[in-house]
Amino acid sequence: MDEFMQVAIAEAQKGLCEGGIPIGSVLVKNGQLIAQGHNKRVQENNPILHGEMDCLYNAGRIGSYRDTVIYSTLMPCYMCAGTIVQFKIPKVIVGESQTFSGAREFMEAHGVEVIDLNLAECITMMQDFIREKPQLWHEDIMEL
Amino acid sequence: MDEFMQVAIAEAQKGLCEGGIPIGSVLVKNGQLIAQGHNKRVQENNPILHGEMDCLYNAGRIGSYRDTVIYSTLMPCYMCAGTIVQFKIPKVIVGESQTFSGAREFMEAHGVEVIDLNLAECITMMQDFIREKPQLWHEDIMEL
Repeated sequence: MDEFMQVAIAEAQKGLCEGGIPIGSVLVKNGQLIAQGHNKRVQENNPILHGEMDCLYNAGRIGSYRDTVIYSTLMPCYMCAGTIVQFKIPKVIVGESQTFSGAREFMEAHGVEVIDLNLAECITMMQDFIREKPQLWHEDIMEL
Repeated sequence: MDEFMQVAIAEAQKGLCEGGIPIGSVLVKNGQLIAQGHNKRVQENNPILHGEMDCLYNAGRIGSYRDTVIYSTLMPCYMCAGTIVQFKIPKVIVGESQTFSGAREFMEAHGVEVIDLNLAECITMMQDFIREKPQLWHEDIMEL
């Protein structure tokens, strides 16, 4: 499997062990991993720290995102997709979109290339989590 | 002037005094101010903490945003607009959109009511800032 997606999955698993929501993300610039992160809604009582947002926060101020690719274990929601569009990140690689279809069309309409690896490992991880903590999942995607 | 917008402007001015980008935001729920914040890109070396994001971070996990209104001294960008859409915040009141047109149409297409107060005070604050620190402004909206 893609080495960067493996790191994103490890981040998701770290989040799960912390009692959080298992979504991980990695930022790659010119082929080098420059930041990683995971959803910290529970851990930091923070509704804006989805996996992708935590990753971009950890990257700090890097200037242009022109040569970057962002990985996420799950298709980005509108918050993360809006950030990807605003930051002009040209490419997104996701682990899956079966448990959450997210904002793929919005990103593509703004010229972002979206690749869905449709990984069984990512699907199972989210399905297990949603089965165990449905309320937390619905809070995270604001289906309240 | 709207009392909540006055708090958002005070937040923006606080950011300016800290050497940051003068954009402030307030979250109101059922008519009560529940959180406020301002852009902290410079202060916390954090590219995701636009004024609206800082405000939503400060609010913490409040459950549903159904009865909220978010104020911002400036029209939200795609990151903040995507967050408003994802969080299902029904109403946005902005100080101005002359210096940055933002993602108004995107929010409206998703059913968000957007009111632009077109305040001279907000326009002047941003114009003065952009004239003084154009590079920082272009970094913040990723026009690099």
